[in-house]
Amino acid sequence: MSSPSANPVGVGVLGARGRMGAEAVRAVDEAPDLELVAAVTREDGLDGLLDAGARVAVELTHPDSAMDNIRFCVQHGIHVVVGTSGLGPAEHDAIRALLAEHPGVGVLIAPNFGIGAVLSMKFAEIAARYFDSAEIVELHHPRKADAPSGTAARTAQVIGQARADAGLDDMPDATTKELDGARGADVDGVHVHSVRMAGLVAHQEVLFGADGESLTIRHDSYDRRSFMPGVLLAVREVGSRPGLTVGLDELMGL
Amino acid sequence: MSSPSANPVGVGVLGARGRMGAEAVRAVDEAPDLELVAAVTREDGLDGLLDAGARVAVELTHPDSAMDNIRFCVQHGIHVVVGTSGLGPAEHDAIRALLAEHPGVGVLIAPNFGIGAVLSMKFAEIAARYFDSAEIVELHHPRKADAPSGTAARTAQVIGQARADAGLDDMPDATTKELDGARGADVDGVHVHSVRMAGLVAHQEVLFGADGESLTIRHDSYDRRSFMPGVLLAVREVGSRPGLTVGLDELMGL
Amino acid sequence: MSSPSANPVGVGVLGARGRMGAEAVRAVDEAPDLELVAAVTREDGLDGLLDAGARVAVELTHPDSAMDNIRFCVQHGIHVVVGTSGLGPAEHDAIRALLAEHPGVGVLIAPNFGIGAVLSMKFAEIAARYFDSAEIVELHHPRKADAPSGTAARTAQVIGQARADAGLDDMPDATTKELDGARGADVDGVHVHSVRMAGLVAHQEVLFGADGESLTIRHDSYDRRSFMPGVLLAVREVGSRPGLTVGLDELMGL
Amino acid sequence: MSSPSANPVGVGVLGARGRMGAEAVRAVDEAPDLELVAAVTREDGLDGLLDAGARVAVELTHPDSAMDNIRFCVQHGIHVVVGTSGLGPAEHDAIRALLAEHPGVGVLIAPNFGIGAVLSMKFAEIAARYFDSAEIVELHHPRKADAPSGTAARTAQVIGQARADAGLDDMPDATTKELDGARGADVDGVHVHSVRMAGLVAHQEVLFGADGESLTIRHDSYDRRSFMPGVLLAVREVGSRPGLTVGLDELMGL
Repeated sequence: MSSPSANPVGVGVLGARGRMGAEAVRAVDEAPDLELVAAVTREDGLDGLLDAGARVAVELTHPDSAMDNIRFCVQHGIHVVVGTSGLGPAEHDAIRALLAEHPGVGVLIAPNFGIGAVLSMKFAEIAARYFDSAEIVELHHPRKADAPSGTAARTAQVIGQARADAGLDDMPDATTKELDGARGADVDGVHVHSVRMAGLVAHQEVLFGADGESLTIRHDSYDRRSFMPGVLLAVREVGSRPGLTVGLDELMGL
Repeated sequence: MSSPSANPVGVGVLGARGRMGAEAVRAVDEAPDLELVAAVTREDGLDGLLDAGARVAVELTHPDSAMDNIRFCVQHGIHVVVGTSGLGPAEHDAIRALLAEHPGVGVLIAPNFGIGAVLSMKFAEIAARYFDSAEIVELHHPRKADAPSGTAARTAQVIGQARADAGLDDMPDATTKELDGARGADVDGVHVHSVRMAGLVAHQEVLFGADGESLTIRHDSYDRRSFMPGVLLAVREVGSRPGLTVGLDELMGL
Repeated sequence: MSSPSANPVGVGVLGARGRMGAEAVRAVDEAPDLELVAAVTREDGLDGLLDAGARVAVELTHPDSAMDNIRFCVQHGIHVVVGTSGLGPAEHDAIRALLAEHPGVGVLIAPNFGIGAVLSMKFAEIAARYFDSAEIVELHHPRKADAPSGTAARTAQVIGQARADAGLDDMPDATTKELDGARGADVDGVHVHSVRMAGLVAHQEVLFGADGESLTIRHDSYDRRSFMPGVLLAVREVGSRPGLTVGLDELMGL
Repeated sequence: MSSPSANPVGVGVLGARGRMGAEAVRAVDEAPDLELVAAVTREDGLDGLLDAGARVAVELTHPDSAMDNIRFCVQHGIHVVVGTSGLGPAEHDAIRALLAEHPGVGVLIAPNFGIGAVLSMKFAEIAARYFDSAEIVELHHPRKADAPSGTAARTAQVIGQARADAGLDDMPDATTKELDGARGADVDGVHVHSVRMAGLVAHQEVLFGADGESLTIRHDSYDRRSFMPGVLLAVREVGSRPGLTVGLDELMGL
């Protein structure tokens, strides 16, 4: 898809031995326009990034170490793509303050690198205002502890907000006799149903209905590798986006 | 599918102006091997069946009148196909006693004339013992009062029974943090989820999962006409099945 | 959704006895912010629109009469929503020329009033560049003469164009031994599969796949009523959009 | 599901280093009622089976060696479960002749160990006679060489045969204007559509339609592990089925 460039971008991966990190190491290594210059593990110091001339770092370590790593990189002019979870508004503000002192450096935080998941949520947000009804069915492997999934809950919130912004009425629902739980969980007025089955991985259907028609957006995720196109997109784009960017959808022009 | 026969079977429809009845009148009328000899409404007496020489009656009136109609028909040697809901074990016993006095007459009671629905339930029953997990998602128009649907509840019971008979363990489920209702209603150990949406009619998915695979049986019902093939099958077969038959699956050799 | 306004917009429907026209008459009649002032059939003259004070006309007659009707309306300062098929670039140019002489009048031509269908196509266009593979499965009733459907063919073209614009490689496909037709029809490099079945109405799945994930956009259309929200949206918006607008997606801000 | 028994059955796996073989080794090893007594590779001789006291052998080597291995086992009174492909009617006859000399020994040949796939095909066979229309959509990863898949072709044949046996008419299809390939491949009168996409594994939908309803049987296979329950079922049952058994459905009572 991309032709090898004369000067591939040097990339360092932090947390190179974690599950996401190992995939990222491989993905960067295989990308012809990128060069893996450092695969940093817990035992290594960050100076390796400098020695190797990394222009972009991919932070995939741990909530405890993420902020220190980001600070180090920004202070040394290295752009950072952050996939570590657990950074909230306070951390975002701290990063913005830091970046204000280092104009030209970019940090991109992605709560979800799955391009399919990001598209699903965006499409759900766009469609929400045009349908009388919206519900979500998410289906996962039976080892999952939380129901509904975080993605389903966020999608429901996005739909609820879009409906409110458009001034829509409540969804039609004549249920008067319900066996406890049959109609699912209520997240901001959107019913969410969680299936847990052996054999499944991670799947989500967002269903919209209006008189005489329905629209379904289904996302199936089978493998951690599905996050890598999103990681690579972020690595390629972060250098041209000084300051803090939150969410892959920003890069995708959605 | 069927060639016109020299002597088409004379059929009377009771409740001919109801929604199901009107469809049945049309369906019998269009079947080349059947002849519609009486379309009986509330105002008519049942004697019209005798005058017209009906060999089979289709009872589609009302729980209040069904038993009287069945009794009249059996006593006059007319086979009966019953689609009226609300007949339970007591009524079944009464009909059996009546039929014992009228050998050669057949009565068929079908809780559901939908061939697709009957097949779905049978397939679910067969598959249940082979999978670690089973759940049901049923989706209906938003004017429906009960959740889950009767068909979904019965399907769950059938699955639960088949699992118990096979000595299966509980389904795997590591959910520890659930938003109320997310995991659906529990019917005999089977989770059932009910979606209510504008634009939908009547749909059901039975999902089975085991390590590395899943099997889904989906039934979509768009129209009352979908019950007519089942009605016609029953009309054609009831005459060769003396005594009481409950369920279309018996006729289908399932 | 909308509150009755003091001065509802007067709307005339042309082709009021056709299948779409009859639905449009009903939909306008039921909308609290619109007033049905004329239901024009073939026998009526167009002057009735003037007498009734129509501010918007909905043209749903026939390709043969559509241009004359549009001309009449525009010349009399009536905005027009056009659902009649068969108007091509030449007709669009003629309408633009006409509108240039009547500034302030708007004409909106919608090849498809189905909001779900318009969203599906837009989502397909957005997603296309992010996935290695894309195919379409469309499913229709068995009385349909053409395969693939016009909507599926247009969706395939949109996807093919988006892939070309993004510089994507050909889709991966190792098929070397194909039973004739198994891989479907090729529309601009996108494989399209057409299912024709009793019981179905009009359905379409656009499937996208990349390493480890897939995204599916499914649209089910059960009834002509599903076009009415799009018609009403167009009627409400056309007055504030002087000149020619082609496609509902323009109004939807997509 | 099964409680550890006092005397677990001794099982030897032939082809223990192949992909299926390695999974079978693991599956037998983990089953409490079975004991893995020999994992035989190409370099080993078969005498190891005898030394280890294997009562059942699982043949997963290669078409070239399968018959020799089966002969050796039967002559030594070891039951055999055969997953190797490529054995046809001639080999079946040879095995029957051999078994006639060794009464009490059982051989089970399974073209497909996937319980979900076996159920899908059986359900398709049962349903076929009750619907006007039937089509198959199968979806696989893009490295697959043949289209349609062998399973889809066999399913279509089974449906075609069931329709012929029931005397059904041709399926309704008014297509007069078809872009080449749009309507799929014709296998015994059943249209089969093959999707090839990055991200997918092995999936199949069998669709049935009649007036007002449709029934869909979908099977998703994500992993070779999905074959292991079928392998274990065969290992447990083969000892009580002297002679040749072909097909897992026999054991499943379908």
